[in-house]
Amino acid sequence: MHEVTRRALFGAVAMGLAVERHHMPRMVGAQSLATPVAVSGDPLSSWTDGLVKTRILTFIAESTDPGHPNFVPKSLRIATFDNDGTLWCEYPAPAQAYFALSVARRIAETDLEASRKPIFHEVLDNSLDDVANIDPDQYYPLFDAVNSGTTQQRFIGLCRGWLETAVHPITKRRWIDMVYQPQRELMALLAANGFTIFVVTGTSVDFVRAYAPVIYGIPSWQLIGTSYDYGFETVNGRGQVFVTTEENTVVTDLQKSTSIALQIGLRPVVAVGNSDGDLEMLQYAKGGPTPPLTLLVHHTDADREFAYDRNYEWSPFVSALADASREGFTL
Amino acid sequence: MHEVTRRALFGAVAMGLAVERHHMPRMVGAQSLATPVAVSGDPLSSWTDGLVKTRILTFIAESTDPGHPNFVPKSLRIATFDNDGTLWCEYPAPAQAYFALSVARRIAETDLEASRKPIFHEVLDNSLDDVANIDPDQYYPLFDAVNSGTTQQRFIGLCRGWLETAVHPITKRRWIDMVYQPQRELMALLAANGFTIFVVTGTSVDFVRAYAPVIYGIPSWQLIGTSYDYGFETVNGRGQVFVTTEENTVVTDLQKSTSIALQIGLRPVVAVGNSDGDLEMLQYAKGGPTPPLTLLVHHTDADREFAYDRNYEWSPFVSALADASREGFTL
Repeated sequence: MHEVTRRALFGAVAMGLAVERHHMPRMVGAQSLATPVAVSGDPLSSWTDGLVKTRILTFIAESTDPGHPNFVPKSLRIATFDNDGTLWCEYPAPAQAYFALSVARRIAETDLEASRKPIFHEVLDNSLDDVANIDPDQYYPLFDAVNSGTTQQRFIGLCRGWLETAVHPITKRRWIDMVYQPQRELMALLAANGFTIFVVTGTSVDFVRAYAPVIYGIPSWQLIGTSYDYGFETVNGRGQVFVTTEENTVVTDLQKSTSIALQIGLRPVVAVGNSDGDLEMLQYAKGGPTPPLTLLVHHTDADREFAYDRNYEWSPFVSALADASREGFTL
Repeated sequence: MHEVTRRALFGAVAMGLAVERHHMPRMVGAQSLATPVAVSGDPLSSWTDGLVKTRILTFIAESTDPGHPNFVPKSLRIATFDNDGTLWCEYPAPAQAYFALSVARRIAETDLEASRKPIFHEVLDNSLDDVANIDPDQYYPLFDAVNSGTTQQRFIGLCRGWLETAVHPITKRRWIDMVYQPQRELMALLAANGFTIFVVTGTSVDFVRAYAPVIYGIPSWQLIGTSYDYGFETVNGRGQVFVTTEENTVVTDLQKSTSIALQIGLRPVVAVGNSDGDLEMLQYAKGGPTPPLTLLVHHTDADREFAYDRNYEWSPFVSALADASREGFTL
């Protein structure tokens, strides 16, 4: 067995992970698309009346009307959503950063060899609240240490266990309860109109797989994201897929479009994002034969959430924001 | 624009391809899962009564019974099928080989520069019927020349156009009409019992995308296969994904399992194949908490199809065949 695998599998066992089970834990209390919110007359009741809401409703009416020139056959109604900052909160740092720190602490406590690595020292010197102040580029090696070595199924289970109780550092609400209600309504409306919804994210896809099927109602294979190369081994003829550190494919910028090509094989007609990393995905939607619905979330509501854009280091919103009008994207 | 892209886009135009359209051509007469075969009392009426059929029916009964220890929740009912030789005919050579030869002829006729490459000479010296006699390893560079340079959507359209009329060299029936009826029944039965079906194939995924949604009723994003790296470019803000020749990821052997990990994120509980390239996919299914359904198609019916296994160079069936009994796979 691969050295790093054996060590980390041991680590996972030390952390009290049970063997793989079919029975996925429910995230109690987490709202899911499977139990949709009560829709009165207005399917987008959380959206302010105005240009954006009208544009969405017009797009859906036209794209589902077989007599309209902008009609899109049901099998081609592909909607791609960015995740962090688009569907749920990513401020002051993405949930995965807090998760990685939490696991790093447990590795440092249970695995003396791993804890000698400089990256663990650097992180453990800071308090949890300081994750937001760390330069993201310096932080990424921690993801390598945390994400790798165990089997995919155990890693997803580890993430899910953390998410059951992990709370946001400022609001003190659970991360899984910080999904944006307007986007939940938009996804439900699209699904009801025959659109198939995908999440396309720079976050590790297996972290997103731990919660997106439960809190958004989107199946595991409609989640596309950053990943480490996977390895495969058999023990007594039973195969296991494990996560390596050998190479990692980051799904942002143009890789959002090329990953859509690989995993979906169809061009999106709805694309929703909130940062420069989403620009090419929206441009890809624009390249099709009918006008797409392209939306960018601009975080300006400091009262109910957080206001940020250009200076947010984890996911800056500079060129896409400046070009939105010229590109025809709706903010 | 990338040199190879410009040339091949020109080539695609020269070949009379229209611009991308939303309206997918129907494959007239092709049987689809969308219009299922009439099921009398027996959902597997094409299967011979006996051990294999009983094993399938028992597996489905147990895995869908919440009270049974082998129960699998609906969201985890993942079935992965190999394509060539498992779902449709691959003998005397896979359809894609005939497609590549056909396109190579047209490139040679319309693109003088491309036609000077040795690979085109080698292939054009042979007749169409001789594809089956070419060493597959020598043939693969032709796939590079044929698959690359155009946009993904145009390439899929090119494949679909060919498949509308292309016939098998021996049976003279259309390739798209040579789907195995027993597998069609098995897929329909699994789908009716809440399983989500994926095709996992060593063939180019975009070739399979041209016909699998129509003839199997499986959506584009549930098709996993070999692919070239995709590129992305914008022209006047409109994005296009094109196929490069820079690197290609072959999905066979252990890459079947690691591609399942990347694109599905769940372990299959049903795995069906017909060659050594499918062995690891079946082993991966075996690694789960409940006993999977693992089937291998052995081509022994020379009267109704073709009999072959060990010596078939495109897709040999040696070690998986020898180990089937020990591994617990059902032939």
